[in-house]
Amino acid sequence: MTNLNDLTACDALELLRARKVSATELVRACLDRIAVQESVIGAWTYLNPDQALAAAKACDTDVPTRPLHGLPLAVKDILETADMPTAYGSPIYKDWRPRADCAAVTIARKAGAIVMGKTVTTEFACGSFVRTANGLNPDHTSGGSSAGSCAAVASHMVSFALGTQSAGCTIRPASYNGLIGMRPSMGLISVAGLKYLNGSFDTIGLIARDVDDVELLWSTQLGVPFIRGRLPVSKLKIAVCRPSWLDRADAVASAAINAAVRSLADAGVEIVRLDLPAYYDDLVPLHQDIQAFEAARSYAWEYETYPDMIDHRVRGIVEHGFSIPFDRYLAMMRQARAARETFGDLIGDADAILTAAAPGEAPFGHNKLGAAFDDMGDTTQSRAWTLLHVPAVTVPAICGPNNMPVGVQLIGRFGDDQKILHISRLARDAIGDPVGAAKVVA
Amino acid sequence: MTNLNDLTACDALELLRARKVSATELVRACLDRIAVQESVIGAWTYLNPDQALAAAKACDTDVPTRPLHGLPLAVKDILETADMPTAYGSPIYKDWRPRADCAAVTIARKAGAIVMGKTVTTEFACGSFVRTANGLNPDHTSGGSSAGSCAAVASHMVSFALGTQSAGCTIRPASYNGLIGMRPSMGLISVAGLKYLNGSFDTIGLIARDVDDVELLWSTQLGVPFIRGRLPVSKLKIAVCRPSWLDRADAVASAAINAAVRSLADAGVEIVRLDLPAYYDDLVPLHQDIQAFEAARSYAWEYETYPDMIDHRVRGIVEHGFSIPFDRYLAMMRQARAARETFGDLIGDADAILTAAAPGEAPFGHNKLGAAFDDMGDTTQSRAWTLLHVPAVTVPAICGPNNMPVGVQLIGRFGDDQKILHISRLARDAIGDPVGAAKVVA
Repeated sequence: MTNLNDLTACDALELLRARKVSATELVRACLDRIAVQESVIGAWTYLNPDQALAAAKACDTDVPTRPLHGLPLAVKDILETADMPTAYGSPIYKDWRPRADCAAVTIARKAGAIVMGKTVTTEFACGSFVRTANGLNPDHTSGGSSAGSCAAVASHMVSFALGTQSAGCTIRPASYNGLIGMRPSMGLISVAGLKYLNGSFDTIGLIARDVDDVELLWSTQLGVPFIRGRLPVSKLKIAVCRPSWLDRADAVASAAINAAVRSLADAGVEIVRLDLPAYYDDLVPLHQDIQAFEAARSYAWEYETYPDMIDHRVRGIVEHGFSIPFDRYLAMMRQARAARETFGDLIGDADAILTAAAPGEAPFGHNKLGAAFDDMGDTTQSRAWTLLHVPAVTVPAICGPNNMPVGVQLIGRFGDDQKILHISRLARDAIGDPVGAAKVVA
Repeated sequence: MTNLNDLTACDALELLRARKVSATELVRACLDRIAVQESVIGAWTYLNPDQALAAAKACDTDVPTRPLHGLPLAVKDILETADMPTAYGSPIYKDWRPRADCAAVTIARKAGAIVMGKTVTTEFACGSFVRTANGLNPDHTSGGSSAGSCAAVASHMVSFALGTQSAGCTIRPASYNGLIGMRPSMGLISVAGLKYLNGSFDTIGLIARDVDDVELLWSTQLGVPFIRGRLPVSKLKIAVCRPSWLDRADAVASAAINAAVRSLADAGVEIVRLDLPAYYDDLVPLHQDIQAFEAARSYAWEYETYPDMIDHRVRGIVEHGFSIPFDRYLAMMRQARAARETFGDLIGDADAILTAAAPGEAPFGHNKLGAAFDDMGDTTQSRAWTLLHVPAVTVPAICGPNNMPVGVQLIGRFGDDQKILHISRLARDAIGDPVGAAKVVA
């Protein structure tokens, strides 16, 4: 029998609306699952069952009409909450309580969501290790930086979650956990109250096991009415992109692209090949250096005030960032703007680009830090698209040699978020779920 | 005799470096000035003389080589500080202490600046009134939202200050106070730790009585070496722009443009006329509506949690913002992007655009709220340029019929910040200071 925590958010919402299930029952089912799984997965930095149940109880007295009525939501601990500690993954902020909820949480709560707690992030969303295990197999990492949100969704502790992405911090862990992960177009969903990393790249990440649930979250954040169901999609053309930086991924990342292409072609999608212009090779280091220049300023106070409490990778980024001369940063900002301006021409009459989401399967094993994973893969496959400000959704495509999932990434023009979600739903239908419920940690 | 607080930052720095003056002496002079003026001006929300003197004393033990060594700096209370309360102009945040300094303050302090205290802002940088009087004449408003920073500089309490601008919140009050005010290119100076208003527009504002001091602040924020002195400027071409929205300004705003044009032409600058394409008329409401959509999300928590503690103008913006459908927001974001892409063609081979900075002189008089000014003019003259992400500097051009200053605005291409500063210096030399020390409140 399916437990309530195994339902998708949309399925649970139908039961809640029909009053066949109460928010309290749903939250209890999630808490029960967390009680069993958390010692293995380590997804949460803050979890207070009484607080979650109190919110559910209050919700049960409401008319169940709100778009997220009674749905348990996990929130990455880089997003500020007034009633739960927010540490941004840093010991400097241990027990820190911001004054306000971030915009994304305020909107989700107003829409009826129950914030279950805060989930693990790497330090300042760019640190070197994470304690969270993969939600499908605890011998593998959940990836970074939205580690806890992805693991919580993959292990059926909740059905959806908020993460963030400034490089590949939603797309990659979502791929590692066999999930649908979305990085919306830059700037559309408010990042007010997200611990500022990069003005050029910071975005909210949306994470679920199902495309509908991601679209439900996206729609709610932007006040767009969400109508569930397979929308008619006209004949699609998808441009397959194997960029030069794909050679920094495992072979399984290419195999995932090939598998997705076959499934989409079988489903009647026209597949064309997209060769990137040579200057695209610059976009990966461009993203990396713009990120470092900005991160250095974002974490300047922490770096100056608590130098010994900063992760070595964060310190490296800050120091690299301060070593970049302004002239170079400005030249890079101009290059990035120019690349964004020509992206529409590049994608041409294709509806989406299909490419790799992650460097491969989630890396294996506990590491020298003891309880933490320090090999979380890298963000190379996402950097260029993040720099371009375009929407991206990862969909699981295959399982690799270690029986861990590998996703592909669907990318659209700036603002084509809903279209990319609809194409992702079609891809999901065409590909099927390579993971399946059987893989979930028992 | 000139008091130390009357010096420009650059002049004071020379004395500090030569150890002819100590930071303690300079801070004392500023505190003495504040003690005399503050009851009339009302520039500060937080001022702790002992704290400022302690910082100065610590500074005096250092080798005076840092770029801002010992220089007193005023900081708008929308920028977070860990050791001073930060209320963002809102009773909701009374006595609130953020955990960290914002990036701009961290960098200024690391460079040796003495943060004197926090200065008055309108609520969340968009409220309806301000208690701060103009630094030149307390019968007039200082404008908004960087009211305290501008009044403190204009009344010689400090030589320079940090403000912010998301619409016209630095350029307009700087014009009202007869100051040099700069809104740098969007995204170059970090806004980490600025109370998030608009991802699309938030910028740090730089305010001083002298162009050199603004450039010193700008350079320090970006790690650019600052070499004082008149740099050789090749033959300049300036495009004079009298946009359609100039009809929403007083005649004195046009007179300021004409006066600046005459002075620049006399100084050998080639003057051409710039007619804006018709779609520019849309940019003012476009900025306004994008701002409202984003502000609604930024202040959603405050609006939901403390509805009775929010200024009616902030409430109006939030409610307007939530009434804008996402489709319209997306269309506006695309329009804004397109306008940015063609700005380079518009400016053509001109070195800068010259246009109005403010709707006229600073409005007169105390108002029905008692101690507060609720007519602060409007931001129309800045909205389009803010939307375009381009750098803007205001330079005082004339005094109006009420003997209050009116500035013009010099605008460049994205990233041409230093060039616009150099042109502003030339404009300052050509125009002279229409205010003069005599106008300062005695």
